[in-house]
Amino acid sequence: MDTAGRKAAEDTDVDRTRLEAFSDGVFAVAITLLALNLTIEGPGHGIKLQHQLWEHRWSFAAYLLSFFIIGIIWVNHHVLIKSIALVDRTLLFLNLVVLLFVVLIPFSTATVAQYLPVGGGDVKVAMVLYSAVFLGMSIGFGSIFEWTLHGDHRTEPLPPQTHWAARLRFVGGAGVYVVAIVVSLFNAIIAFVLIALTAVYYIFWSQRPVSRPAPAAPGDGAPGG
Amino acid sequence: MDTAGRKAAEDTDVDRTRLEAFSDGVFAVAITLLALNLTIEGPGHGIKLQHQLWEHRWSFAAYLLSFFIIGIIWVNHHVLIKSIALVDRTLLFLNLVVLLFVVLIPFSTATVAQYLPVGGGDVKVAMVLYSAVFLGMSIGFGSIFEWTLHGDHRTEPLPPQTHWAARLRFVGGAGVYVVAIVVSLFNAIIAFVLIALTAVYYIFWSQRPVSRPAPAAPGDGAPGG
Amino acid sequence: MDTAGRKAAEDTDVDRTRLEAFSDGVFAVAITLLALNLTIEGPGHGIKLQHQLWEHRWSFAAYLLSFFIIGIIWVNHHVLIKSIALVDRTLLFLNLVVLLFVVLIPFSTATVAQYLPVGGGDVKVAMVLYSAVFLGMSIGFGSIFEWTLHGDHRTEPLPPQTHWAARLRFVGGAGVYVVAIVVSLFNAIIAFVLIALTAVYYIFWSQRPVSRPAPAAPGDGAPGG
Amino acid sequence: MDTAGRKAAEDTDVDRTRLEAFSDGVFAVAITLLALNLTIEGPGHGIKLQHQLWEHRWSFAAYLLSFFIIGIIWVNHHVLIKSIALVDRTLLFLNLVVLLFVVLIPFSTATVAQYLPVGGGDVKVAMVLYSAVFLGMSIGFGSIFEWTLHGDHRTEPLPPQTHWAARLRFVGGAGVYVVAIVVSLFNAIIAFVLIALTAVYYIFWSQRPVSRPAPAAPGDGAPGG
Repeated sequence: MDTAGRKAAEDTDVDRTRLEAFSDGVFAVAITLLALNLTIEGPGHGIKLQHQLWEHRWSFAAYLLSFFIIGIIWVNHHVLIKSIALVDRTLLFLNLVVLLFVVLIPFSTATVAQYLPVGGGDVKVAMVLYSAVFLGMSIGFGSIFEWTLHGDHRTEPLPPQTHWAARLRFVGGAGVYVVAIVVSLFNAIIAFVLIALTAVYYIFWSQRPVSRPAPAAPGDGAPGG
Repeated sequence: MDTAGRKAAEDTDVDRTRLEAFSDGVFAVAITLLALNLTIEGPGHGIKLQHQLWEHRWSFAAYLLSFFIIGIIWVNHHVLIKSIALVDRTLLFLNLVVLLFVVLIPFSTATVAQYLPVGGGDVKVAMVLYSAVFLGMSIGFGSIFEWTLHGDHRTEPLPPQTHWAARLRFVGGAGVYVVAIVVSLFNAIIAFVLIALTAVYYIFWSQRPVSRPAPAAPGDGAPGG
Repeated sequence: MDTAGRKAAEDTDVDRTRLEAFSDGVFAVAITLLALNLTIEGPGHGIKLQHQLWEHRWSFAAYLLSFFIIGIIWVNHHVLIKSIALVDRTLLFLNLVVLLFVVLIPFSTATVAQYLPVGGGDVKVAMVLYSAVFLGMSIGFGSIFEWTLHGDHRTEPLPPQTHWAARLRFVGGAGVYVVAIVVSLFNAIIAFVLIALTAVYYIFWSQRPVSRPAPAAPGDGAPGG
Repeated sequence: MDTAGRKAAEDTDVDRTRLEAFSDGVFAVAITLLALNLTIEGPGHGIKLQHQLWEHRWSFAAYLLSFFIIGIIWVNHHVLIKSIALVDRTLLFLNLVVLLFVVLIPFSTATVAQYLPVGGGDVKVAMVLYSAVFLGMSIGFGSIFEWTLHGDHRTEPLPPQTHWAARLRFVGGAGVYVVAIVVSLFNAIIAFVLIALTAVYYIFWSQRPVSRPAPAAPGDGAPGG
């Protein structure tokens, strides 16, 4: 590599490092704020603590699910950003779109957790909101991937014939959330379980090493993309 | 580069890295705390969830705008800090002035979101506050840029004849907020829309790669500067 | 090292760096949110400030204990992750399990702090919750260590004859929390003191340099593992 | 430098990097949480917004002061950690003591801001608390500096004859807070102004470049140490 090339590569590394640092910061704060929604009425309300905890069981379930979905997104973000050769303004703003929805997750989680115990029409709206935030994030993620396919944005360009297969995996991830939105209109619990099963599937699905110099798999863990 | 020079350069890199890490942390926390203001009264208040969400529409709008303005600032901060050759105490404290206002954004956003639905004289005050926080941040940003023009603070010094053009772009960014403050006194909604349009303009304005070894553009995305 | 090997090693470094950055972010936010539980009723309630502070003495004690336990976990996490040669998906998700419980610590701390002053049956439940969160984290930590023993996951593999000794130290750490859970059912204060004494023991226990090229000690500071 | 020495140096760099990353995370979260205390009653309470803002003037003053004190601490932490050659467990735990008090700053700031407008005996207690948190942090900082003087903990050992001069500057920083505690018992406002003037002094005091290979100045910006 000549000096200018090395300089450019180092510049990209600096940019990628800061992009990752900022994103990791947002992921870390969002994942930790999830637990702020877990609160107990405390003594003096005459309700036994174990009953209070049991009444909050949906809050714990929603916390658990949102925690692992943010975790999956973070892992995928990690793999996707690593495959990028050039950090430009477009990438920075597409990344902001992903983060815009990540930051909304504690809010949508708190909302769905409040309405899951009461049921009725409101829980359907809450579940649509919950799924829609994940869908928005998923679309943002897919946009970054689409952007990497064009120009010389990838360190190791994907062969064109694999583009559609890779896209399909991204669309599959977003598709789960579209289905969840539709299902929410009929039964919020089923929609919740559907998203949970998908998350479980992706956590146990791929065991390939992340850091081996094998060709990076775009669209890995599609729920985040 | 001789050993001493390399040592000094590495030292600066270490300092810049920590300056960026701390700033990124503050940006990440501030941008995530924005969404803490999004809360729903919850069940038991007899208001349908979709009505509650609709009643909070200004909160969502203010969240969206503040999110992207912090995002723009972060991108510009990134470009500006990268152009700096020497990290000294003055820079660290000028940077603190920028962060002082960044940290206030969740507060000013929550305030304006509370008053936008009610209108009246208070929303004008809230909108002045909202614009003034951005103006303060903008002035802090401009001070860092001004400081880079003097001494040997830049990696690649700007030719003196470009200084005024670069300054103008910074003044332009701050100018939008000055105009917004004046407009707020007459109509808060118009001031809000003005800031939003400026943000949209800057997001789509510049597509130059951030990490190409092209001459760094000072004042890029002037709203943050 | 040949070029491919160097590339793989650098990849792992990048992955480890991001794993650490994300984890450090979560640790940093969780440890800071602990103090959000410290609030004073403020003037206008007719209670003198020094009395309010005294009434919150258990909040301060719980803050102090949880702060240092998160600190110990962070130090151990630091040592453990440094010994890892290969960052794969399994590690990323095992690490998420540790973080899942770290994020719950501000909640369990707030809960136990609310019930310690009132006593009764509820404080036992609160103390079981408090200990169980630490136990969960400890099991997650032990799983990462167990995972490092297999395959070529460690930079410097531990001789097989030392595996059980190392495991024992991890089990010892988790064991303290199991004992604390059992003790909680009889006396919450004693369980609290037990966890506190263990934390004090681990803080003053090991003074070996962390960064000397001495053989890394697995299971150091077992409470986190 | 031979290979082993380089390995050890790199290890220390890794440790220092993570120590800084964690500390920066805590500083960044704590400094941003400061602004969470800034809240407005909102519309519907019949109090004009400008009056609400005016009633919160002490909150803004306390926010401003605490923000810059955390900023000064961060700058000093930066300089102090950079001078350290060896990261060991003792350093990690001494650093935790500093962070323990940093994390308390949003709490002590909120408390003093609540009582400054009402005056009376409570504001004296609040001001003692506010000063004592800074004093605790200052003592933690001084302990790290003291620890760097022994063994081979510094990259460039300070000549023994300068130790006492350096210590004096640290003691001077802590001394301001001791004086503020005593003054608080008579007049909280004067104690507040005293701390503010000291912060202003340290911000404008030293303009030496942070990243020039000049001998690092221990005890720079003593309020943090």
